[in-house]
Amino acid sequence: MSWNTFGRVLRFTTWGESHGPALGAVVDGCPPGIELDERAIQPFLDARKPGQNRFTTQRKEPDQVRILSGTFDGRTTGTPISLMIENVDQRSKDYSEVAKAYRPGHADYAYDAKYGFRDYRGGGRSSARETAARVAAGAVARLIVPEVKITAYVSQIGDDTIDRSAMNFAEIGNNPFFCPDSWAAKRWEEKIDAARKAGSSLGAVVECVAEGVPAGLGAPIYAKLDADLAAAMMGINAVKGVEIGDGFGAAASSGEQNADPMRAGENGSPEFTANHAGGIAGGISTGQPVVCRVAFKPTSSILTPVDTITRPDENGNIENTEIMTKGRHDPCVGIRGVPVVEAMMALVLADHKMLHRAQLG
Amino acid sequence: MSWNTFGRVLRFTTWGESHGPALGAVVDGCPPGIELDERAIQPFLDARKPGQNRFTTQRKEPDQVRILSGTFDGRTTGTPISLMIENVDQRSKDYSEVAKAYRPGHADYAYDAKYGFRDYRGGGRSSARETAARVAAGAVARLIVPEVKITAYVSQIGDDTIDRSAMNFAEIGNNPFFCPDSWAAKRWEEKIDAARKAGSSLGAVVECVAEGVPAGLGAPIYAKLDADLAAAMMGINAVKGVEIGDGFGAAASSGEQNADPMRAGENGSPEFTANHAGGIAGGISTGQPVVCRVAFKPTSSILTPVDTITRPDENGNIENTEIMTKGRHDPCVGIRGVPVVEAMMALVLADHKMLHRAQLG
Amino acid sequence: MSWNTFGRVLRFTTWGESHGPALGAVVDGCPPGIELDERAIQPFLDARKPGQNRFTTQRKEPDQVRILSGTFDGRTTGTPISLMIENVDQRSKDYSEVAKAYRPGHADYAYDAKYGFRDYRGGGRSSARETAARVAAGAVARLIVPEVKITAYVSQIGDDTIDRSAMNFAEIGNNPFFCPDSWAAKRWEEKIDAARKAGSSLGAVVECVAEGVPAGLGAPIYAKLDADLAAAMMGINAVKGVEIGDGFGAAASSGEQNADPMRAGENGSPEFTANHAGGIAGGISTGQPVVCRVAFKPTSSILTPVDTITRPDENGNIENTEIMTKGRHDPCVGIRGVPVVEAMMALVLADHKMLHRAQLG
Amino acid sequence: MSWNTFGRVLRFTTWGESHGPALGAVVDGCPPGIELDERAIQPFLDARKPGQNRFTTQRKEPDQVRILSGTFDGRTTGTPISLMIENVDQRSKDYSEVAKAYRPGHADYAYDAKYGFRDYRGGGRSSARETAARVAAGAVARLIVPEVKITAYVSQIGDDTIDRSAMNFAEIGNNPFFCPDSWAAKRWEEKIDAARKAGSSLGAVVECVAEGVPAGLGAPIYAKLDADLAAAMMGINAVKGVEIGDGFGAAASSGEQNADPMRAGENGSPEFTANHAGGIAGGISTGQPVVCRVAFKPTSSILTPVDTITRPDENGNIENTEIMTKGRHDPCVGIRGVPVVEAMMALVLADHKMLHRAQLG
Repeated sequence: MSWNTFGRVLRFTTWGESHGPALGAVVDGCPPGIELDERAIQPFLDARKPGQNRFTTQRKEPDQVRILSGTFDGRTTGTPISLMIENVDQRSKDYSEVAKAYRPGHADYAYDAKYGFRDYRGGGRSSARETAARVAAGAVARLIVPEVKITAYVSQIGDDTIDRSAMNFAEIGNNPFFCPDSWAAKRWEEKIDAARKAGSSLGAVVECVAEGVPAGLGAPIYAKLDADLAAAMMGINAVKGVEIGDGFGAAASSGEQNADPMRAGENGSPEFTANHAGGIAGGISTGQPVVCRVAFKPTSSILTPVDTITRPDENGNIENTEIMTKGRHDPCVGIRGVPVVEAMMALVLADHKMLHRAQLG
Repeated sequence: MSWNTFGRVLRFTTWGESHGPALGAVVDGCPPGIELDERAIQPFLDARKPGQNRFTTQRKEPDQVRILSGTFDGRTTGTPISLMIENVDQRSKDYSEVAKAYRPGHADYAYDAKYGFRDYRGGGRSSARETAARVAAGAVARLIVPEVKITAYVSQIGDDTIDRSAMNFAEIGNNPFFCPDSWAAKRWEEKIDAARKAGSSLGAVVECVAEGVPAGLGAPIYAKLDADLAAAMMGINAVKGVEIGDGFGAAASSGEQNADPMRAGENGSPEFTANHAGGIAGGISTGQPVVCRVAFKPTSSILTPVDTITRPDENGNIENTEIMTKGRHDPCVGIRGVPVVEAMMALVLADHKMLHRAQLG
Repeated sequence: MSWNTFGRVLRFTTWGESHGPALGAVVDGCPPGIELDERAIQPFLDARKPGQNRFTTQRKEPDQVRILSGTFDGRTTGTPISLMIENVDQRSKDYSEVAKAYRPGHADYAYDAKYGFRDYRGGGRSSARETAARVAAGAVARLIVPEVKITAYVSQIGDDTIDRSAMNFAEIGNNPFFCPDSWAAKRWEEKIDAARKAGSSLGAVVECVAEGVPAGLGAPIYAKLDADLAAAMMGINAVKGVEIGDGFGAAASSGEQNADPMRAGENGSPEFTANHAGGIAGGISTGQPVVCRVAFKPTSSILTPVDTITRPDENGNIENTEIMTKGRHDPCVGIRGVPVVEAMMALVLADHKMLHRAQLG
Repeated sequence: MSWNTFGRVLRFTTWGESHGPALGAVVDGCPPGIELDERAIQPFLDARKPGQNRFTTQRKEPDQVRILSGTFDGRTTGTPISLMIENVDQRSKDYSEVAKAYRPGHADYAYDAKYGFRDYRGGGRSSARETAARVAAGAVARLIVPEVKITAYVSQIGDDTIDRSAMNFAEIGNNPFFCPDSWAAKRWEEKIDAARKAGSSLGAVVECVAEGVPAGLGAPIYAKLDADLAAAMMGINAVKGVEIGDGFGAAASSGEQNADPMRAGENGSPEFTANHAGGIAGGISTGQPVVCRVAFKPTSSILTPVDTITRPDENGNIENTEIMTKGRHDPCVGIRGVPVVEAMMALVLADHKMLHRAQLG
């Protein structure tokens, strides 16, 4: 099946392939009257844009977004917002090798097994270029939850994690890794350079914190806020794990360690003295920061030849071969995942804000 | 919002509270002609049933399921299957304390923040009793994917993990912990007994392996098989993390380490020499075992008093207090999560099998 | 496929067969804090109840509803409301004839063609008994739109229509036909008696007026208020046509005749001087009464033998035969459709009220 | 709310306004491997295209469709198909009058009541230009149900109906009214010319017949084939009524008259000797032609001044005024509804074909 729509009342649908003429998103359900033009979207696309430094793929895409519908006089009308980004740098390339053999770790084999047929140019629909459409949609979603501050950053590259005591959100924009720890950023520069030169790649962990989410968002039992976040994050290319709050750390702890005690705050409103739960209990936000951690596998495209098989020929025969994925790639795909994680967080929160008021008025 | 339906074409809706007269599930979309009576469901409910040994809550519920619709002459008709389980042991208890103060870690505060009102008896709708309905629905889903063998087990309790070299699925039924490593099971017995006696609790990790899933299931981009699994698992009570394949381990590895090379098998069909991906690439199954790991936090109900606040009184005032959750509880809620994880796996796979043939015929 | 859920954010799922142990509905998404017990639902079921006079089927069903979940202390909690109605009068009967041959006009052949298998007792899932579950769900929906007054009535039986100049809503409860014209009611008594005695049946038109619907409900383009009403009504057993406002009459008119001019009302609020549109323009309510007309075909069960075929035998062979549907039937199924039409109207309006505030706050 | 997606497993989402830069549809769920390029879509858009003769609006739009994604080497890939049509003839016009006062019969007032804000240029999102996107999507859907022959035509304009004994599908393309009765077409030419010259407009009835629909499509209870068709058709601009088979005629008939007797056909397969049901029983197709009738109201834009009110000024005050809708309009909007009705029929049937095989394999 193909299912390219996400969300329940704020829904967006994305379309487009890596090497097609364009890609885009249709955002449906956005409230009317919100100020929106391309300038509200472009900075987020720019943050995700490839080719900005030597640590990301050298494909050069301006990723200029164009709003084709849904606004009037600079404001949303409440009707679907069509966002389009043209593909510019679909470098002419010989794809015959990729057409013939499966790149391990990529979706090549799975797509063929499903559809019997695939657009093999740059991964086609399974390319991470699709995430540009999510980032554009996410920029619209942010405008629906202006009360929320969403911050994502890389907390780990390979096995090298940040020092939490040295974490400073102001540092995130000061390095090409969205790293909140300047010392880690320095180490990573070397680390990724080494991987890049070796034609290797590295995994990463992206953390995302949403501050200002009011208590009460979430839809038990099967649209819990954490369940929807898990789906949103796990569906990003290359993601293999999602945690809320302490995540797998909670599994290793005791009930006493994991408790989030409550106190009456100075102004008489509820406060928590810990946030092991990551801001969500019973699938509903507690008013604490929503905290999510996302594991990205290393980029599957590496310059080391890997064993693989050929596509079945007309007689259904396959053959052993090996493949080495030449071309332009991110040595650590998790880095450019940061704006995507933020976008998905915004989209889930905006959807749940709207779902909440559907029932609660 | 309230959203008690899960699935896309195989959909189930659950209802019921911990201390209401009954709970149930309506399974919709099941193919016709499948043999089904209560005996196909009951064993899975029995596996999840409380009160079977000293390591689980002492609430005694027979959890007898009754099929109220959707079958005729012992076979499914293709119409909705209504499953009902009566609550029997809703022990009369004084809930005044829980009504007045929030139990940290539970959904009490979040539900109040959302709905302004909650059924506080035993957690109401947020109680893990709801998972009985999932297990019943999952038993139906299994019949739709008879080609798949689903096995879940506990791989970690607290910080104590199984020895994978000693893992034996045949052991899972030989101990009260669904543990595939008999030595670990022995250690856990002591560990959980200690926690139970101390009025404490422990977290756990449940792993689930689905063998026999054909290549090609999954619906890119926003109903990816792994994304739907993530939502399914994260939505289970007390779950805080989900991994597919190597999960967070993949984030710590290099592209070479994470590769899943392919070979032509003896019979000419594709084979993989590793399964770091956990059987899913690009959101689509690869034909390898689908592997999922689920982190359960420790039971929030502990006998140690924890700081909390009272429910706002009529003037909106809250007060500091502390609460100690007396009553019957699982010292390690992850254990009884095993049949629930299996059920959710079955439900997701059955749904995707049907989604797949909707598009592919 | 089987798809037993209706609605977008207020959703209900029904289950149950004519001759199973029970039938029911799960209403999901209802706002919390609404006073609800069985007494708020029962009167609507009583209005639809069979066996109340000689003009309806003589099956005797008390249709007592039981609320199994979703309320606490007499108020809704915001969690799913499970409603169950036991079947009592599943008169033991010889169904061998219906099992063997298809009753023309019924769903027998279509169900067999689809599922290859059907519960033939009393029509199974295709029986109009399912509408009891809708009526129960509709009673909950009414509580979500207390500002709306919904009135349905029979405006035509066979080719005999009411005199609109003699229409009086107060008359609707004074006759067994939900007829607002006392003279027509008298004529219909004779007409239906004659049909009943002849073993024949008659079609009917049910009109439904919803007063107090605020302007602005509806979700363009593919969840227009009128489109959702059309689906809701066309999905009722035996319905073959739906009109909004002037309906097919509008097709026969000119733009001048069909105009709904507007005026500033005495209090400065917009008023219309006609309502050809039936309260909906562009899929959105205008603030005028929402008016819907629904065509019910005559009951397909008649005592005149009709040509039909047998079910394919094991070799796939069919044979010509004829069938005469004995047993208990409504001579005019449209009459008991009145409470069902009202229920569907309430369910659509409540859903759209909630959808509206999802987007508009 | 805004809800611009239609369908359950074959889903399409449309976007765009009458006077924006473009409009389009994203078709999601289409099976892979189907031959598709713009030439498969364009003829249907051409049939709907405005400005082709004096009986339709004089707006000149080439309505050239462009496929932006979802195909590779001339075949569908199973991923979303993005279709875009640029708006060319958004004639610069003074919209100040329409901005200030509501056009009766149009969605102007309803949109303002809902969103507080609207794109008033040519009706914005509520313009019938949106139906171009449906027609494009419908052309894709047709390729999924090649076994079905869909034919729509105008059967009535104003109060003038075709002579069914003179009906000939071959005539449909021989006149500008999609009329299957050449004598009626002649009468209508005069009739519409008169209306056009008088600045008036006329309603119409469009009939649609789908031949070759296999028995068994439809999803009881809340996605019945007829219910989904009713929603599909009622959601078309200007539609006020939908009938399946005999429709309101069935309401006026007796059970004997309405029966669809069955016979064993020559080849031993089931045949019907009548089709009062319009090919659908119990919400499931019977194998007979699916027959649907759709009532279009007269175009609301007329040259006769109609009473209306002004938009509320900043103090919320409204004033009485009158409005006369100048500009380019169809004197009978039902005529160009024919390709739209066909498209919606194709989309519903393709969706149900896929839904059916999801459950039945």
